[in-house]
Amino acid sequence: MKLYHAPTSPFVRKVRVAAAELGLADRLTLEPTHVSPLERNRAYGDTINPLRKIPALVTDDGAVIHDSGVICDYLDALAGGGRLIPTAGPERWQVLTAHALADGMCGAAVSIRYETVVRPEAARWANWADDQWDRIRTGLAWFESHPEASAGPLDLGSITLGCLLGYLDFRFADTPWRDSCPALAAWFADTGARPSFAETKPG
Amino acid sequence: MKLYHAPTSPFVRKVRVAAAELGLADRLTLEPTHVSPLERNRAYGDTINPLRKIPALVTDDGAVIHDSGVICDYLDALAGGGRLIPTAGPERWQVLTAHALADGMCGAAVSIRYETVVRPEAARWANWADDQWDRIRTGLAWFESHPEASAGPLDLGSITLGCLLGYLDFRFADTPWRDSCPALAAWFADTGARPSFAETKPG
Repeated sequence: MKLYHAPTSPFVRKVRVAAAELGLADRLTLEPTHVSPLERNRAYGDTINPLRKIPALVTDDGAVIHDSGVICDYLDALAGGGRLIPTAGPERWQVLTAHALADGMCGAAVSIRYETVVRPEAARWANWADDQWDRIRTGLAWFESHPEASAGPLDLGSITLGCLLGYLDFRFADTPWRDSCPALAAWFADTGARPSFAETKPG
Repeated sequence: MKLYHAPTSPFVRKVRVAAAELGLADRLTLEPTHVSPLERNRAYGDTINPLRKIPALVTDDGAVIHDSGVICDYLDALAGGGRLIPTAGPERWQVLTAHALADGMCGAAVSIRYETVVRPEAARWANWADDQWDRIRTGLAWFESHPEASAGPLDLGSITLGCLLGYLDFRFADTPWRDSCPALAAWFADTGARPSFAETKPG
């Protein structure tokens, strides 16, 4: 399988961690892919993902699958099913909702990068970045006060939470989050040391 | 069940159309909810969804479920399963990938609204809106050339496509899409007339 990839994307990392945890990492061939609002990668947009977002997966049968959550759903099924995403019951929608939250927080963090680095200085709007930070902080407080969302074996929600925390460390080292989230800090000290995370650290 | 709702959101509409197609519309109580980057709705963010995005669902058991795709997954299961999202096989990831694409196009369209209406004039950046439009156009061309993604009974992907097209008509009537997408235009003329769509038209 071919995974369209960039080493800094928290969404790509989610898929790579999921694959490693499922024992499927060796099946992925990484295809380095550059996407940016400033350079429209039309070859990728026209043939793989019109949204020009990564990751996307091309299966051994040639099917194109995206976004990162859908790829993880596919990999989970390939590994037998129900390992990262419960197949039924309240825990299914708990995990999927935690995933939607952590994934949206990753999106907010990437949006702050666009606002403060990619966008021309004259066209920046502090309120946008402030508002996205506020969502991230509220989300961190939610995870801090819902330890069940990260407890136990890794699932799609907790993997994505780990990728978010790693992305905050990577891109926003000057905006510490550990002091206000000691339980998450302890969890990530352990989880981030797992081979699946250690081998996919952004950089 | 309580659905946090706004009549203009394509993401809320997706859930309402899905519920109607599944015969569950009567089970939803709509809770009008205002969210905006300019007014931080903290009551909603602190108790329902830290991302301050709609929709969110509170089930009869009190569980909070979001985002729109996860709510549709829940409603589909409630209706017996496999009706809007195939449970297995290549068609599962085809539908989920079409959904990710149409959902991302809705996100691009909302992002254009933020750029051109919400953001202060001095802080607008034409390249951002142009780039988002380019993604939408590329996605429309993809759906136009992949009629199988909208053929047959409605599923999560084609419902979301319909919500996108309705949102383009609602917010961007001066940017016509039908001339370049005749097959989609014909499909939406039929699909948009279904009660599930007709009764949830944005406005």
